[in-house]
Amino acid sequence: MLDLHQTRIHDGRELLTRRYDVVRALSETLAAPLSAEDQCVQSMPDASPTKWHLAHTSWFFETVVLRAHMPGYRVFNEHYHYLFNSYYEALGPRQLRAERGLLSRPSLPEVMDYRQHVDASMRDFARAADEDTWSVAAPMILLGLNHEQQHQELLLTDIKHLLSRNALNPAYCAGYPASYSIGTSIQAQDVLSLGWVDCPGGRVELGHEGAGFAFDNETPRHEVLLRPYQLANRCVTNGEYLAFMADGGYRRPEFWLSDGWALSRAQDWRAPLYWQEAQEAGDGIWRNFTLHGLRDIDPLEPVCHLSLYEAAAYAQWAGARLPTEFEWEAASLGVAFDGRFLDAARLHPAAAQPGAGLQQMYGDVWEWTRSSYDPYPGFKPLNGVVGEYNGKFMVGQVVLRGGSCATPEGHIRPSYRNFFPPGARWQFSGLRLARDL
Amino acid sequence: MLDLHQTRIHDGRELLTRRYDVVRALSETLAAPLSAEDQCVQSMPDASPTKWHLAHTSWFFETVVLRAHMPGYRVFNEHYHYLFNSYYEALGPRQLRAERGLLSRPSLPEVMDYRQHVDASMRDFARAADEDTWSVAAPMILLGLNHEQQHQELLLTDIKHLLSRNALNPAYCAGYPASYSIGTSIQAQDVLSLGWVDCPGGRVELGHEGAGFAFDNETPRHEVLLRPYQLANRCVTNGEYLAFMADGGYRRPEFWLSDGWALSRAQDWRAPLYWQEAQEAGDGIWRNFTLHGLRDIDPLEPVCHLSLYEAAAYAQWAGARLPTEFEWEAASLGVAFDGRFLDAARLHPAAAQPGAGLQQMYGDVWEWTRSSYDPYPGFKPLNGVVGEYNGKFMVGQVVLRGGSCATPEGHIRPSYRNFFPPGARWQFSGLRLARDL
Amino acid sequence: MLDLHQTRIHDGRELLTRRYDVVRALSETLAAPLSAEDQCVQSMPDASPTKWHLAHTSWFFETVVLRAHMPGYRVFNEHYHYLFNSYYEALGPRQLRAERGLLSRPSLPEVMDYRQHVDASMRDFARAADEDTWSVAAPMILLGLNHEQQHQELLLTDIKHLLSRNALNPAYCAGYPASYSIGTSIQAQDVLSLGWVDCPGGRVELGHEGAGFAFDNETPRHEVLLRPYQLANRCVTNGEYLAFMADGGYRRPEFWLSDGWALSRAQDWRAPLYWQEAQEAGDGIWRNFTLHGLRDIDPLEPVCHLSLYEAAAYAQWAGARLPTEFEWEAASLGVAFDGRFLDAARLHPAAAQPGAGLQQMYGDVWEWTRSSYDPYPGFKPLNGVVGEYNGKFMVGQVVLRGGSCATPEGHIRPSYRNFFPPGARWQFSGLRLARDL
Amino acid sequence: MLDLHQTRIHDGRELLTRRYDVVRALSETLAAPLSAEDQCVQSMPDASPTKWHLAHTSWFFETVVLRAHMPGYRVFNEHYHYLFNSYYEALGPRQLRAERGLLSRPSLPEVMDYRQHVDASMRDFARAADEDTWSVAAPMILLGLNHEQQHQELLLTDIKHLLSRNALNPAYCAGYPASYSIGTSIQAQDVLSLGWVDCPGGRVELGHEGAGFAFDNETPRHEVLLRPYQLANRCVTNGEYLAFMADGGYRRPEFWLSDGWALSRAQDWRAPLYWQEAQEAGDGIWRNFTLHGLRDIDPLEPVCHLSLYEAAAYAQWAGARLPTEFEWEAASLGVAFDGRFLDAARLHPAAAQPGAGLQQMYGDVWEWTRSSYDPYPGFKPLNGVVGEYNGKFMVGQVVLRGGSCATPEGHIRPSYRNFFPPGARWQFSGLRLARDL
Repeated sequence: MLDLHQTRIHDGRELLTRRYDVVRALSETLAAPLSAEDQCVQSMPDASPTKWHLAHTSWFFETVVLRAHMPGYRVFNEHYHYLFNSYYEALGPRQLRAERGLLSRPSLPEVMDYRQHVDASMRDFARAADEDTWSVAAPMILLGLNHEQQHQELLLTDIKHLLSRNALNPAYCAGYPASYSIGTSIQAQDVLSLGWVDCPGGRVELGHEGAGFAFDNETPRHEVLLRPYQLANRCVTNGEYLAFMADGGYRRPEFWLSDGWALSRAQDWRAPLYWQEAQEAGDGIWRNFTLHGLRDIDPLEPVCHLSLYEAAAYAQWAGARLPTEFEWEAASLGVAFDGRFLDAARLHPAAAQPGAGLQQMYGDVWEWTRSSYDPYPGFKPLNGVVGEYNGKFMVGQVVLRGGSCATPEGHIRPSYRNFFPPGARWQFSGLRLARDL
Repeated sequence: MLDLHQTRIHDGRELLTRRYDVVRALSETLAAPLSAEDQCVQSMPDASPTKWHLAHTSWFFETVVLRAHMPGYRVFNEHYHYLFNSYYEALGPRQLRAERGLLSRPSLPEVMDYRQHVDASMRDFARAADEDTWSVAAPMILLGLNHEQQHQELLLTDIKHLLSRNALNPAYCAGYPASYSIGTSIQAQDVLSLGWVDCPGGRVELGHEGAGFAFDNETPRHEVLLRPYQLANRCVTNGEYLAFMADGGYRRPEFWLSDGWALSRAQDWRAPLYWQEAQEAGDGIWRNFTLHGLRDIDPLEPVCHLSLYEAAAYAQWAGARLPTEFEWEAASLGVAFDGRFLDAARLHPAAAQPGAGLQQMYGDVWEWTRSSYDPYPGFKPLNGVVGEYNGKFMVGQVVLRGGSCATPEGHIRPSYRNFFPPGARWQFSGLRLARDL
Repeated sequence: MLDLHQTRIHDGRELLTRRYDVVRALSETLAAPLSAEDQCVQSMPDASPTKWHLAHTSWFFETVVLRAHMPGYRVFNEHYHYLFNSYYEALGPRQLRAERGLLSRPSLPEVMDYRQHVDASMRDFARAADEDTWSVAAPMILLGLNHEQQHQELLLTDIKHLLSRNALNPAYCAGYPASYSIGTSIQAQDVLSLGWVDCPGGRVELGHEGAGFAFDNETPRHEVLLRPYQLANRCVTNGEYLAFMADGGYRRPEFWLSDGWALSRAQDWRAPLYWQEAQEAGDGIWRNFTLHGLRDIDPLEPVCHLSLYEAAAYAQWAGARLPTEFEWEAASLGVAFDGRFLDAARLHPAAAQPGAGLQQMYGDVWEWTRSSYDPYPGFKPLNGVVGEYNGKFMVGQVVLRGGSCATPEGHIRPSYRNFFPPGARWQFSGLRLARDL
Repeated sequence: MLDLHQTRIHDGRELLTRRYDVVRALSETLAAPLSAEDQCVQSMPDASPTKWHLAHTSWFFETVVLRAHMPGYRVFNEHYHYLFNSYYEALGPRQLRAERGLLSRPSLPEVMDYRQHVDASMRDFARAADEDTWSVAAPMILLGLNHEQQHQELLLTDIKHLLSRNALNPAYCAGYPASYSIGTSIQAQDVLSLGWVDCPGGRVELGHEGAGFAFDNETPRHEVLLRPYQLANRCVTNGEYLAFMADGGYRRPEFWLSDGWALSRAQDWRAPLYWQEAQEAGDGIWRNFTLHGLRDIDPLEPVCHLSLYEAAAYAQWAGARLPTEFEWEAASLGVAFDGRFLDAARLHPAAAQPGAGLQQMYGDVWEWTRSSYDPYPGFKPLNGVVGEYNGKFMVGQVVLRGGSCATPEGHIRPSYRNFFPPGARWQFSGLRLARDL
């Protein structure tokens, strides 16, 4: 079990408070390009409005820190407990998930006031709490910060989904760096050809260990046995995926998991989510809706916004398979923890850079694994309300690894387990191939 | 057939232009209490966002007047044709009705700019159009104004629905006149007891006739034969409806139309829409969500936000029936055309005032009739695009008469036919009893 | 109001008993070509299994005659009250309509035993009942017989629907008379060209009157005013309908009611129900699934299995309209009551025969009218349980007139009002054109 | 990969042919108590009619043996390829799964003829095939027999579901042995109290190995690492489950997986599937619908017809957890392969019998594990059409182990992996507790 209380927060209150300020500020920075209207709308039940993310993350601190541990804390608005609880059954009834977009009230300014109220209270608390209280609260603060970072990524993927549904094809970001554009500047030596990296397998210790923060689902650390295998040196690219499409990838059931085939037929999938076929053109001219607006397809970029079903179908077509999450993590142990995350400010996955060994393990796109999201042996959820954080979702979902261009830097680790239902496509999700040795 | 071109617009361009300004301004007045967020959200597929109403009504003028008749008109934004077409098949594909709430873009300021652009162009057009052009365009302008008035009522009923879904129970209107409050100030002599007014029936001429504006569905004028009947002197009140509820009205199928019973069970109806049962109380303590926020039930006010099913069940329980639209219109011919409409600025139906004969025929609440919305004998839709205005909806709906507290004054007539599906509850819809003589 | 007790049953018990035997026997004759399996399956919620029809009609007699009026009647099986009640709320909970096909038990032999038990008891009752009891029960028996006749038509339309969903294209009837086959034997003089018959309109008395049986919904007799109009001399044919299809009838929204257009798009309608496009052929080669199996389209037969939406769209395309039910009934008054009903044993509509005036008013296909199914002025439902027979369905449906090739002879009258939702297609429903004079 | 061709079928054609006869006969024996009607109806999309099972299993032999390997084989009916293909995409379009119950044709006698035709052809084939052909076909025959055995269990669970939906509560089996009845005859010494068995874990080799038949999903054999753990000595009983219910098990979200809680609320679960609450009684008097009809709850029998969600909630409530499939298989290695399967002819799970160590590992009820159904490392599907047998279902499902009272004896093995979605309840599915050491 992850014992949050054992997390050594070496640097004490000041550093945690400074980190609090940085994380909280980033959420507001991400919301800043959006109008109050943009921040209010919910485009599907799985997505939440930006404003709701801003409020919910504040409610989390209010609930698990301020109400729990700060004497005399003044609740900002008693109704918010109903409006901004996400899924904590222990905390009572709440706004239906699919109806978060009905909340034109409270207004965005009121939500920003709420954030300020919580932030000011958190600062007061950090100043005034005695050591015993602090030692109990600090792990909750750390959890709250990691929680808010998760919502930062969701904020971006959710707003991308909303904007994609708008016939105006609006951009979230005004500018798109020239260096992102494709083609002309790419020299042959800059392109990383597909290669395979041998991984020995064997008895490997996986899962989180040590003083740093981790979610409970990454624990306990445990050993697994792996057969020898190979991983591709980089993620599958748009260009490679176009070949799959051209070869009838979306029309040939033999590549597909049964549920995936049914879903792809029911929803008439013909390309990754956010790819739009040019109306004037015939079959095959696609454009890519990005946070920078509608762009040409860059064949060297990693393919993105795939479901597990599409990722697995591609792997089948390619004569390979997806790695398990254990294979992925074992392979990651020999790789520098480095990648293009949210802080790279691209908000779009980029082509792998040349180099030996495994490239692009972190950042750019989450990599679907072929591992269902099951508990690790010996797993125990956290105590109390936050026990609902991970364990109760451990069925019917699939693990992704490695983070994306929308993951806040410092949020993830090699042992980090992201998870979504196999049909989910609106995350920055791609794939890396594996095969048996 | 209604020939819009025959509509005598006695007063010419100036008066029509002045009326244009008044109607257009009212839409903006109605939107003014609402934030950009409030104006963006769609609370159900049947309802539209305020911002969409503001844009769509402008698009209507742009389409049927400016693009059709003004040389050199500069279209504001070509995409708006897709975004703000409501249901005109002849005009091509359009934003799905259920997804109007996704339109965080264009922003509210952009929509207001659109309105100003259209308004300025309309003024230019009124100034510059030659007589031939004007004579063709003027009926379209008149239609557009009546169209916008319809959307003014929808704007209010749609925003009421949105606000009702918010646990904060927010008010659209800040203030609620003291005189609206119930009870103490009502003297016995101010209460209008239920009475019956004899109506002779016979051969009656109904439908629109004459120079004033009317929709095509009110035409042609024609004769019907009616048996003698009685109408109640006022609408059914909340107090009377509470007796129906207390007598098991929502639990006894013998009062209900079959489809209505099924719907009421499926959606667990126990009271009119917008009535909330106090959680702390047992059965029977209800509050009423209004545009002024949550209020006590006023037993003297007309009951409102009923479906046809509930109205018919009440009538059955009361040993009476609903009038046909023909009975209603025939009876209205002897009554002064007067009532509390939107201009009364109450935005809530009020108790009938004492008086002899039929009271409350106009305003306060729309009155469900027992007439399906069928074409009148000899009915012909308008020519051109506006031919889709009414005729294509003439099946599966039921006629309501008389207007409500949200109907713009000057918009309706005795011959006016409103229509909604029998399960619709979010309009200001109530009932008046009838019986055979 | 229809007072069943006033129904003069001139011929007394013997004749009614004889008629009972005839009607009851016909149900079993209709079921005879079907296996126990065929009789058990439910192909959609709107349709019922044959076995259920056989049992339900028996339950009706058991409930409204035997249990109500026969002392010492032994109920066959108490559970059947639950299983075979159709929609009588006053009689308590019942098998869900959509789950009638789950009733593999009771078995078909048990249901046939039930029929025999009820029939024997009915004979005992007819023999033994005193006059007072009989005078009360006889109208219920008469109602029960008409009720069973309605189910005879439904039995055929429901089994046709089931068989149509089977890739084996099985026939209900083994043989199809040679004379039904198209083409060669038809001489020019045998073809009835489309013509128009003038109808004066005016003040017309409509609805049921007199001693014969009628349903409550045909009453009371009352006067209406009609404008002069024309009716087509026969129903629209397959050949004419093919021209509508060839002219883009299913692709051009301008012909369609709004709900109909939406439904036709959602369900991808391209032809009448039961028409199958030959897979090998390109657009336009259709075959017709009939109770005799898959057949070529006969261009002279009346088009059949249309929804109201398709009928209205065809009329719009043809520059005409559908008649109102009042126009239809007024015109029928001058026409001999004669047509090809179930007793013609064709089970398929046949081409109109040459002749002057209105042909084919009865039999062959039900004719959609442009009248919503509303109560007649002064309508009152029957008393007691059978009060649920008609009145509670009077909303959201449309009237059809004239009977079909599946209507038992002797069941209908000129005043007979059939009704179905506008999207229903599985009845033998076609259309006759009308237009204003 | 499972190489069916390597399966040593020591005993050659005769034994396989004899086994073929036995398996095929059992299917017909299981269908024998059912009428043609019973065998025709489909009670939900997940279930299939008995007749369909009988035909589909024949189609399987026809397709993978006779059409593939027997020269001059005469196909019984070309349409059956469409009607009785289950889910093999490679074999073209097919009857929709949810519409298998529409197949009143072919009739049951025709399906029995089909079986006889296939059986006769198979005998001819076994007699006449040359050795090369036989060596290729024999593994397919073996697969077909195992396939048919799977459908035998489904036949029983599907018919149980159908009969359970009938208000007559009909029994599949006429008799219920006296020894099955509860209570009086049970002596204290016959009751197996809950106990825990230590399992050492460690490095364990799992999966199928050797000459016997196995499905591809049980391969390849591979090693896993397990921590030490405990398994309960028997399955959870009805009596224990009633305590969970009495303690609010269905009302307390803290025990539930998130999806399970949502589903249980949406479907108002209050007890295992097939438990009916006595209407006259208050909360807590339950009866159990079985293949022998409605019975009292036997507190000593294993609880059955649980979803994974209920099983996991029970385990959480009990302070334990479900075992992984690896833990289950590792523990099974030391246990005699013995249990009450279909051949015990009880068709209902029975109480565990006293004894030391792990009891009831096989038979009675399938045991939900806490393992998602993922491919084993190195898994490869079969070649050809039968490659669709297992692999394409490996997502979104959960593994069950051990077989049930409806599993044909000889069908399963310790390595056998059954799998169903976590919400499935209509299988004979229960649970055994586990906990960490």
